Amino acid sequence: MKKLHIINPNSSQPVTDTIRATAVGLLPDLADRMVFATLADAPAGIVNQGHSDRAAVLLADHVRHADAYAGAFLIACFSDPGLYAAREITSSPVIGIGQASLAAAAAFGSRVGVVAISRHAIARHFRHYAAVGLRSLVVGERAIDLAVDQSGNDVARARVIEVATALRDRDGAEVIILGCAGMSALRAEIESSVGLPVVDPVAAGLAVAAERLTNAAHV
Amino acid sequence: MKKLHIINPNSSQPVTDTIRATAVGLLPDLADRMVFATLADAPAGIVNQGHSDRAAVLLADHVRHADAYAGAFLIACFSDPGLYAAREITSSPVIGIGQASLAAAAAFGSRVGVVAISRHAIARHFRHYAAVGLRSLVVGERAIDLAVDQSGNDVARARVIEVATALRDRDGAEVIILGCAGMSALRAEIESSVGLPVVDPVAAGLAVAAERLTNAAHV
Amino acid sequence: MKKLHIINPNSSQPVTDTIRATAVGLLPDLADRMVFATLADAPAGIVNQGHSDRAAVLLADHVRHADAYAGAFLIACFSDPGLYAAREITSSPVIGIGQASLAAAAAFGSRVGVVAISRHAIARHFRHYAAVGLRSLVVGERAIDLAVDQSGNDVARARVIEVATALRDRDGAEVIILGCAGMSALRAEIESSVGLPVVDPVAAGLAVAAERLTNAAHV
Amino acid sequence: MKKLHIINPNSSQPVTDTIRATAVGLLPDLADRMVFATLADAPAGIVNQGHSDRAAVLLADHVRHADAYAGAFLIACFSDPGLYAAREITSSPVIGIGQASLAAAAAFGSRVGVVAISRHAIARHFRHYAAVGLRSLVVGERAIDLAVDQSGNDVARARVIEVATALRDRDGAEVIILGCAGMSALRAEIESSVGLPVVDPVAAGLAVAAERLTNAAHV
Amino acid sequence: MKKLHIINPNSSQPVTDTIRATAVGLLPDLADRMVFATLADAPAGIVNQGHSDRAAVLLADHVRHADAYAGAFLIACFSDPGLYAAREITSSPVIGIGQASLAAAAAFGSRVGVVAISRHAIARHFRHYAAVGLRSLVVGERAIDLAVDQSGNDVARARVIEVATALRDRDGAEVIILGCAGMSALRAEIESSVGLPVVDPVAAGLAVAAERLTNAAHV
Amino acid sequence: MKKLHIINPNSSQPVTDTIRATAVGLLPDLADRMVFATLADAPAGIVNQGHSDRAAVLLADHVRHADAYAGAFLIACFSDPGLYAAREITSSPVIGIGQASLAAAAAFGSRVGVVAISRHAIARHFRHYAAVGLRSLVVGERAIDLAVDQSGNDVARARVIEVATALRDRDGAEVIILGCAGMSALRAEIESSVGLPVVDPVAAGLAVAAERLTNAAHV
Repeated sequence: MKKLHIINPNSSQPVTDTIRATAVGLLPDLADRMVFATLADAPAGIVNQGHSDRAAVLLADHVRHADAYAGAFLIACFSDPGLYAAREITSSPVIGIGQASLAAAAAFGSRVGVVAISRHAIARHFRHYAAVGLRSLVVGERAIDLAVDQSGNDVARARVIEVATALRDRDGAEVIILGCAGMSALRAEIESSVGLPVVDPVAAGLAVAAERLTNAAHV
Repeated sequence: MKKLHIINPNSSQPVTDTIRATAVGLLPDLADRMVFATLADAPAGIVNQGHSDRAAVLLADHVRHADAYAGAFLIACFSDPGLYAAREITSSPVIGIGQASLAAAAAFGSRVGVVAISRHAIARHFRHYAAVGLRSLVVGERAIDLAVDQSGNDVARARVIEVATALRDRDGAEVIILGCAGMSALRAEIESSVGLPVVDPVAAGLAVAAERLTNAAHV
Repeated sequence: MKKLHIINPNSSQPVTDTIRATAVGLLPDLADRMVFATLADAPAGIVNQGHSDRAAVLLADHVRHADAYAGAFLIACFSDPGLYAAREITSSPVIGIGQASLAAAAAFGSRVGVVAISRHAIARHFRHYAAVGLRSLVVGERAIDLAVDQSGNDVARARVIEVATALRDRDGAEVIILGCAGMSALRAEIESSVGLPVVDPVAAGLAVAAERLTNAAHV
Repeated sequence: MKKLHIINPNSSQPVTDTIRATAVGLLPDLADRMVFATLADAPAGIVNQGHSDRAAVLLADHVRHADAYAGAFLIACFSDPGLYAAREITSSPVIGIGQASLAAAAAFGSRVGVVAISRHAIARHFRHYAAVGLRSLVVGERAIDLAVDQSGNDVARARVIEVATALRDRDGAEVIILGCAGMSALRAEIESSVGLPVVDPVAAGLAVAAERLTNAAHV
Repeated sequence: MKKLHIINPNSSQPVTDTIRATAVGLLPDLADRMVFATLADAPAGIVNQGHSDRAAVLLADHVRHADAYAGAFLIACFSDPGLYAAREITSSPVIGIGQASLAAAAAFGSRVGVVAISRHAIARHFRHYAAVGLRSLVVGERAIDLAVDQSGNDVARARVIEVATALRDRDGAEVIILGCAGMSALRAEIESSVGLPVVDPVAAGLAVAAERLTNAAHV
Repeated sequence: MKKLHIINPNSSQPVTDTIRATAVGLLPDLADRMVFATLADAPAGIVNQGHSDRAAVLLADHVRHADAYAGAFLIACFSDPGLYAAREITSSPVIGIGQASLAAAAAFGSRVGVVAISRHAIARHFRHYAAVGLRSLVVGERAIDLAVDQSGNDVARARVIEVATALRDRDGAEVIILGCAGMSALRAEIESSVGLPVVDPVAAGLAVAAERLTNAAHV
């Protein structure tokens, strides 16, 4: 049976491990059909457009090589590096957690707020929202301005709650997206604190990719 | 454990049976946490705004009565009757298959085409797309113009393929939504024929509702 | 001669009396062609989506029964409950004071501010603005947060002036809509205080409905 | 009592006579409060942007001179020449029949079609629709391509029906605007033939201006 | 060889002199193909819509008389008075510095801020942005609120820096337009102070007009 | 003096030679300040998203190495590969001919048509139009569907005229962009045949970059 290739498009093994833990935890029955990849030559984190562009090339190469064995691909970075190039290469479904998380949020409301790791990511993210046709959903994006490796810890938790609360109260968001693959573990806690649905991009992308793997007609 | 209440907001038991078959087929492990309801006093089908308005009131009543036992609600009609009223009543998640299917389609592309049962539904649908903030995604909606009870049969199959092909070739759709709960069984076949991802609203809504049931912080 | 049916879609007779006073005051020559209805089984006020959905069903029933005698219908509630269902039932014109008041405001400027009774109405109103295609006109909506039965009194006057001033100065509104049928009596005073055109939905809807009654080709 | 100044911003007396007949016919009780002006130095018709610009200057001069005696102004040309300049000059309401007719159409539907006299007017009109913030309402504009002085006759009638039918069937319009002050007499007949509400700009503008004259707080 | 007619559509000779100095300084090789005109009968400055409308008529007259000798026209006022009328008159290119400066800014970013001379200009400018189809680019416009004849001096410099900084920091602008022909001399200094590209409308319009003069196929 | 680095982000030397000929022909006085680069490791042409992503990385590397010597950079490919990454690297201006050509077109009109080399480029282009905030300007894009190396020859000329005519007559374009760096030589001829302003992206980008090189405050 063909596998779901879940690709962390940076070179950080701990990030891949976090993604694996999230994915296996959410869909344990599918665990043995999941393959996880770390792109060894990619930047350690995707924090600017240059990183995203480099990851895009490596991701496309990975998809090209894995295509024969894969039933679906999931790009596990909120910036979706290589999404459209990968779709040119394979006839299997390719899902990006960024596009998928915006889509998932749209099921809960029409005013979406995004928590970013860094203020420097915001303009890049908005270009992506525009490119996928969902710019008008996003009523605000605010940054916690912590390093990527802090994105799952205690300091991060407090900052994410603070930022998500501002998105709710100042920007009128009715659903929140955690704009980084590394914040997955915080989802339930943020949701409980802020009182709005909170979308974890890894979970959102995984749901779409798993559905495609098991139900798609493989167009 | 709280249940997922899946509500067919019309009074047609065969439609409920179809929804049940689809839902149980997609998520068998969750079958014993699903409760299916048919709204006995509702119209036999939701084919105009008056039907949708009547169904909305009955759906809200159902949600009010079932709230103590439900962990999530799924409104299994593409027009999402009663969606916003139900959200006022319960603190559990309420998902509409119409909003959820537009959202699901957005994970695959930014040009969405919708297959309608009847041309008379199209203006009503577009008002709903606008209300949920996703009007700009929909590049076209075309109708098969068959009766609701024909929406799963052979004639319907040929018409849906014809209409979906027109959405792809004339309107430039890159993803198709089957705009009726009764077309679920056709999804894979249409996807295979047309070569685009095809979203079944029941499946799309079920995925969101199931995720909320099992993972949400119950905000 | 056929009549103009002016329907208060809640069960509050004082609200109907206010609407009658406004309508007869504005168009005395047409007074004997006006019929006023109160929907006895409807909620006492339309303050949430559930109320609006219930009123919609009753309004459609009223239109069905009155259709033979009516030359035009006016739905006298800013949320326009039952507007589209009524248009399915009758070939006579059906005007909603919500849609009509947005339209009237558009004759004065492209930046419209709305005074709401309650903050809880705002999201519901915005869904309606989107559905009628005029979402982009509304630059702000702010609530006085008083009970419906206070909406015409002294406390209300001061709050409406305060809120309308904020719409003018903070949101840049160049025309104001009083977002409730019960504020009609305040219109001239607010207009004088705030220095912007102020639209009363009852007056706006009445003007359209009366024009249709007397001039339409009854399409 | 102050008067309603209805200004035909071209130099054609027959056009002014038509406007007067329409206005007095619609609001006979207000006839003695109406003053009609023809701008003697203006072009004979407003058929291009240059004409509109020249009329704008003359209209502003007229408003400046008449301001002491006027309670409201109505600019009786679909291009609304001088609308914004006039609003700078006087504190009395200034209504343009172009802006007012778009606004009136918005009370009936969110898909508006416009019948133009000439294809050369269409780009100019669309600039005006954008400037007043209602561009997104207009789903199509089609021209009868007849001379201005033919705009009320038999040939015009057949052409207007043909063009309005195309707006309905090809562009999906649900309400029609007659995009010229000279087509007023055709309104009811077109409405009857095409089966959609048809807005006459003179009537639409007159309704707004009369309401302002009699009810406004004279902000 | 045909000339580039650069028209200052107000009657202020010092403004024309400033425009001439800017234009000759930017394109000295083209200096002997430039003709500068001051519209003697126009207002001394274009500070409201009435001024702009009057200038529009005089500008169109100038274009009509100069057409035989001109290879291109440049309207050197940010409000582009007479732009569309002039394009009806001549087959030579007609460029407005307002439209051209918005276009130039779009080469640097999608979030444009405009420095206005006066707050009273802002609504008029936004109508023009909408009419040229670029409304969505402008994230903010703020005024220095000085007289036109102060627009190039020391007081102006400090105010422009203050206002441009607010456009950058509060409105998120990534490119600034100096919304008046009289601020040309300040461009480099503002750019250096604010750290964003700053567009001078005269330079932007001149670049387009010069390109058209020398390279266009004279359509 | 710092140079203008004009980068052909593919590995085809003949394309670079064409770009050089165009650039030197347009701005001969600046010829000795122009440096031309071909990215040897890049694809031979940018015909899909994968090519564009690979070119983006190489372009960013080039900018990093050349930054000390460059006063401005011009990316000479309509897809603007590496545009945003390059802007992260250097404080010198970076101009993309794609963004610049859309911007240039906006100086002539608000309805832009694009001639593409291949139908497969169109979806990718539209994502870029959205990302730069100018999606709403483009009323149509149509492809000549010839190979890149045919894009300047006789067959191409006839096809470009055919396609540009369709953009004018069917899509209502009032300005045309040649959506490929290789069509530069055809510009004047297409403009003459079609009777609309025609924008060559190389010329448009060069104009912006040269202006930045010589006049910018080097922010």
